[in-house]
Amino acid sequence: MNKTRVEAVSDGIFAIAITLLVLTISEPDDYSHLASQLAHRWPSLAAYVVSFAIIGIMWFNHHSVFGYLERVDGGLFYLNLLLLMTIAFLPYPTGVLGKALLAGEGARTAAVVYSVTMAINALAWGAMWIYASSNRRLLTSSFPESQRRTATLAFTLGAVVYALSIGVAFINAYACLAFHGALAVYYAFDPISRRANRRPEASPT
Amino acid sequence: MNKTRVEAVSDGIFAIAITLLVLTISEPDDYSHLASQLAHRWPSLAAYVVSFAIIGIMWFNHHSVFGYLERVDGGLFYLNLLLLMTIAFLPYPTGVLGKALLAGEGARTAAVVYSVTMAINALAWGAMWIYASSNRRLLTSSFPESQRRTATLAFTLGAVVYALSIGVAFINAYACLAFHGALAVYYAFDPISRRANRRPEASPT
Amino acid sequence: MNKTRVEAVSDGIFAIAITLLVLTISEPDDYSHLASQLAHRWPSLAAYVVSFAIIGIMWFNHHSVFGYLERVDGGLFYLNLLLLMTIAFLPYPTGVLGKALLAGEGARTAAVVYSVTMAINALAWGAMWIYASSNRRLLTSSFPESQRRTATLAFTLGAVVYALSIGVAFINAYACLAFHGALAVYYAFDPISRRANRRPEASPT
Amino acid sequence: MNKTRVEAVSDGIFAIAITLLVLTISEPDDYSHLASQLAHRWPSLAAYVVSFAIIGIMWFNHHSVFGYLERVDGGLFYLNLLLLMTIAFLPYPTGVLGKALLAGEGARTAAVVYSVTMAINALAWGAMWIYASSNRRLLTSSFPESQRRTATLAFTLGAVVYALSIGVAFINAYACLAFHGALAVYYAFDPISRRANRRPEASPT
Repeated sequence: MNKTRVEAVSDGIFAIAITLLVLTISEPDDYSHLASQLAHRWPSLAAYVVSFAIIGIMWFNHHSVFGYLERVDGGLFYLNLLLLMTIAFLPYPTGVLGKALLAGEGARTAAVVYSVTMAINALAWGAMWIYASSNRRLLTSSFPESQRRTATLAFTLGAVVYALSIGVAFINAYACLAFHGALAVYYAFDPISRRANRRPEASPT
Repeated sequence: MNKTRVEAVSDGIFAIAITLLVLTISEPDDYSHLASQLAHRWPSLAAYVVSFAIIGIMWFNHHSVFGYLERVDGGLFYLNLLLLMTIAFLPYPTGVLGKALLAGEGARTAAVVYSVTMAINALAWGAMWIYASSNRRLLTSSFPESQRRTATLAFTLGAVVYALSIGVAFINAYACLAFHGALAVYYAFDPISRRANRRPEASPT
Repeated sequence: MNKTRVEAVSDGIFAIAITLLVLTISEPDDYSHLASQLAHRWPSLAAYVVSFAIIGIMWFNHHSVFGYLERVDGGLFYLNLLLLMTIAFLPYPTGVLGKALLAGEGARTAAVVYSVTMAINALAWGAMWIYASSNRRLLTSSFPESQRRTATLAFTLGAVVYALSIGVAFINAYACLAFHGALAVYYAFDPISRRANRRPEASPT
Repeated sequence: MNKTRVEAVSDGIFAIAITLLVLTISEPDDYSHLASQLAHRWPSLAAYVVSFAIIGIMWFNHHSVFGYLERVDGGLFYLNLLLLMTIAFLPYPTGVLGKALLAGEGARTAAVVYSVTMAINALAWGAMWIYASSNRRLLTSSFPESQRRTATLAFTLGAVVYALSIGVAFINAYACLAFHGALAVYYAFDPISRRANRRPEASPT
């Protein structure tokens, strides 16, 4: 497996999934009251923005994680494929959640489905990291041993927090959407990617 | 952040959004009068052409702006992501505007939504530029100081003009669409990208 | 303008348009008679195959033409963008033609729209070629002068033949679709791309 | 033909087709019973997962096969285009199969269409391989002669097995879907790609 080509296809799936999200926003069905029709669709737009942020930030972190890898093997390819499936699938629960909130029916169910998708995504991240990092199987030699344990802890914790989001979904669908938005923002500032960002070799001219 | 990879993903989102636009063109619903059905859909086609031109020309200018950057950091990544969100979102207001003009109802509302999207897009451009250029944070050393102020002025003016387009939308939806088409053509000839185009290092064999 | 990046985005639009075509195939509306429903959709499938071949072969020829260019300038960028618009738009007339042939109504109109799209596409090819080749503006020095005139003639003839396809559409929609399929096959074997294919520098390891 | 650019466009079509699959999952039509609506859609989700795995694993093997090629010519380009057409088309039978299983009607027909698509895909793989490998037309000199015969046998056998899946479709649609899932898993572990994976020159840093 050529690492560059795996990154290129991953980038492609991130880019397509993030752009396809626009098709999930509920379309107006009555143009004679367009303003109120569109105003009522704000949950659909909110779900769009949250999923867009999630995919965008995950893409950033995917980039960082692959920056720590020396090479890619078949096992990592398939764990990465599983991860990409949860991202490519995200437009479905996003559309369902937006439409359930608009309909005022089934919002709790929709939020649970959204959270379960994200929890599986978090498990895929964790599985990919543990596969790549245990015994330093695929890590670059420059990746510090101390940071390896911190990252493993962070991915484990991530899986737990996303599992918790399923509980939040049972309480309230809006709270659940806000929770996922807040988590996305947290991951935009998380230490692992910030450190990756600062590494001089990751910023070629 | 690797600048080349950020450019590649940006290119991907531009390419996908511009191609997805075709799904926004209103489909005929009565094939027994197909000629008149299609003829009535000309506003949908006009909205398609304007949005296609906007995304294509913005892609060109995105290219120019990134040509002035020495490197990419996390802040620029997220401002670029915000910019890409307004572009990936454009198919939605494009479809709504085309269908409202076809229905002869809600056209003003639809034109306002289209213009607001473009105004947010202009703000994202401005924010990205100011972040990258203030104190020459990310600029290449070869980018002339005098041109930096001109560009900041141009981006500020752009935000003002796109805010004005919201006013045009309140007057007439067709005029608003024409206004956006004219703005796209203007940006196709604007001095910043023309100069970028002439730089010898930007034209490798 | 960086030629490599223009090629990459063109490739992206070709790839997305060709893959989006699948969304234009008419879906069954009655699953209790699925076999006959799908059998009646063969014109939709035929339109899919013809458009897929057209875009695929055009991509091949786009590749050849760009292989003759030394560099890309703003004028070529925008003519290329116009060309890409006709390709990104093709899913719309493809879907309409397939559905009109299925409905048994409006097929002539749909075939005319399909042919007009292709005629505009042929004009865009011609305009791009004439812009790039007149006074050898953007051509590589290795491109032989004699072949330049042959190519100009071929592109002019192409525009004429695609204009003729509009006439074929008025006679019969099936004949028109077959005519476009035959033209695609012809272009798959046309001398210009074959020669490009044989150039040693175009076949790196 | 530049081999790298053919690989890049192939990657693009794989990435787009795999991501578009999400649009084939049947959407709920009654949000007041969303939980049971979604639960009944499990065959649609199963078809999604199977097709996702098929495209992902085929992408991996495409990668391996191209790694054995010294160069790409026009013949290979068009056989590869035929192969990509069967992959780009897969979302259609995937959506029809998922919806037929949900409707409880037409499932056998839908499974036959799915299997026929996959059988044509297997024939395209075989045709591409035989074209590239007969008389070692396009193979790298390092590819061992003994492995060439093994691979030809494997591709021939693949076409036979996928033809058999049409028979399985006539017996039971669920069994057919499971059969395709099992085949995908088999190809994820097949010796050819594993060997390709182990080649040192295929794992650059």
